[in-house]
Amino acid sequence: MFAVTILGNNSATPAYGRFPTAQVVTIHEHQILIDCGEAAQMQLAKYKIRRRKINHILISHLHGDHYYGLIGLLTSMGLLGRDTDLHLYAPAELEKIIEAQFAVSNITMTYKIHFHALEKEGLIVDENKFSISCFKVKHSIACWGFLIEEKKPPRKLDKEKALAYNIPAAYYNALKEGNDYTTKEGDVIKNELVTLPNTPVKKYAYCADTIFFEEIIPTIKNVHLLYHEATYLKDLKEKATQYFHSTTEQAATIAKLSNAKKLLIGHFSSRYEKLDEFLTEAKAVFNNTDLAIEGVTYIV
Amino acid sequence: MFAVTILGNNSATPAYGRFPTAQVVTIHEHQILIDCGEAAQMQLAKYKIRRRKINHILISHLHGDHYYGLIGLLTSMGLLGRDTDLHLYAPAELEKIIEAQFAVSNITMTYKIHFHALEKEGLIVDENKFSISCFKVKHSIACWGFLIEEKKPPRKLDKEKALAYNIPAAYYNALKEGNDYTTKEGDVIKNELVTLPNTPVKKYAYCADTIFFEEIIPTIKNVHLLYHEATYLKDLKEKATQYFHSTTEQAATIAKLSNAKKLLIGHFSSRYEKLDEFLTEAKAVFNNTDLAIEGVTYIV
Repeated sequence: MFAVTILGNNSATPAYGRFPTAQVVTIHEHQILIDCGEAAQMQLAKYKIRRRKINHILISHLHGDHYYGLIGLLTSMGLLGRDTDLHLYAPAELEKIIEAQFAVSNITMTYKIHFHALEKEGLIVDENKFSISCFKVKHSIACWGFLIEEKKPPRKLDKEKALAYNIPAAYYNALKEGNDYTTKEGDVIKNELVTLPNTPVKKYAYCADTIFFEEIIPTIKNVHLLYHEATYLKDLKEKATQYFHSTTEQAATIAKLSNAKKLLIGHFSSRYEKLDEFLTEAKAVFNNTDLAIEGVTYIV
Repeated sequence: MFAVTILGNNSATPAYGRFPTAQVVTIHEHQILIDCGEAAQMQLAKYKIRRRKINHILISHLHGDHYYGLIGLLTSMGLLGRDTDLHLYAPAELEKIIEAQFAVSNITMTYKIHFHALEKEGLIVDENKFSISCFKVKHSIACWGFLIEEKKPPRKLDKEKALAYNIPAAYYNALKEGNDYTTKEGDVIKNELVTLPNTPVKKYAYCADTIFFEEIIPTIKNVHLLYHEATYLKDLKEKATQYFHSTTEQAATIAKLSNAKKLLIGHFSSRYEKLDEFLTEAKAVFNNTDLAIEGVTYIV
């Protein structure tokens, strides 16, 4: 399972029941929270997402609609008895803000928060089954995009064949890594005989908030799912540029140019009550587009 | 109209769809927000309370469930174009936290926030139609209660009589203040002839979060409506004491001893899904009790 669940799809301020930006990426047994707008913890409860599995939180930038819900979530995690470490990746200034809030409350946290300041592009998380890197997008303040990549061993085991060749189970992982097997008698069983090519690793890229910015394309090239902000409809291109945001058409153009398999658009301006037009406009440029709808899970 | 609308009635962390503490006091054409737990701005929208009328915000103490929603509300007020001044009364440390959050977002506020640090007991707001004073309650960190008092002129005008005596309308306010009227001819029309005694001013006291603390009784004596926290049922009296909170029975005892007309209890612990028992236990000590239910307005 590699998928994204939307907790909030609105920009700047809540409107029409839509919440500010937050989403949870599920990758195998891990959950990664990207951005944490106000009331993200209520949205997690509403959509029955267990917060215990969240060990990584990524904050793209320090506009309130992307992080005002973080302190509440961190506090509740402690009140509910969390004891496992949490890794938080965010612009450096956030650390002091969180520390100041914990300091005045006089509450001792039951778990450790490792704060990692986002400073340069590149790898930030390197786990067994996935990695995360960050890259710069272009907004009115420093803002980061994130690329989450699944990790798979190069080969898939053909278990029937491995059994037929009497290869011990302890050697299966080595087979998945592409190694041959040498029997006690010295016979070499070529890897290709007992394994199959694995499916390619999948990639998810998250790009919010940003002006139309082609420099990100090499980094997000060929992703299976691209989340790109689309704050405005295409007629408000000038306003989008003025506020360092994107239109439907611009988000779809980035998807097209980066050869994404699928596009997810969100961060809708509070000026719009209905969202249909967002989908129509984006699809005209890049057909495989979905609207980021709260509570819905999109497979990468 | 002098009434309290509950936006959040839960303690510490949201649970069972209940939100952390926040409530709006409506007094004539003014609205006062007391405490501002996370997502208070969403609750204001849900219950269709116009935030433009809120010119005073009171924060009792700096535990997150009483103020994590403040920064989001202040930000949204700016984004929605507020231009009237806002007065914020809170423990001193909050000012720096808010300033730090505005600083990193690089957003210029469209309105002025006057920060008033709560430092000593007494009058903090003195408006034409109401006043607010603060008093100390006893919690694990510094915590303030608030007393909101309506102001009414001493006398009510008996308009028919005033017309019969040919008293000019420009003099009506002086009549309400209890003054006699002297005609051009020098005749004195005694105030009692053209006015009636006014109804007594009403008072609302807000007490959260606090251990059972009898020292507040002289301050809140005879209030028409007393909000007092009741985090736990009575069997958890020891836990209440340990965490500087109150039980149902303790809240009701304060209401009884202070001769309140009515008691409103809230700040329910997340350990309770159902609230019926809170009401039963409190009523056994002080019959005129209501549960603070989100979205409901209670007349003072």
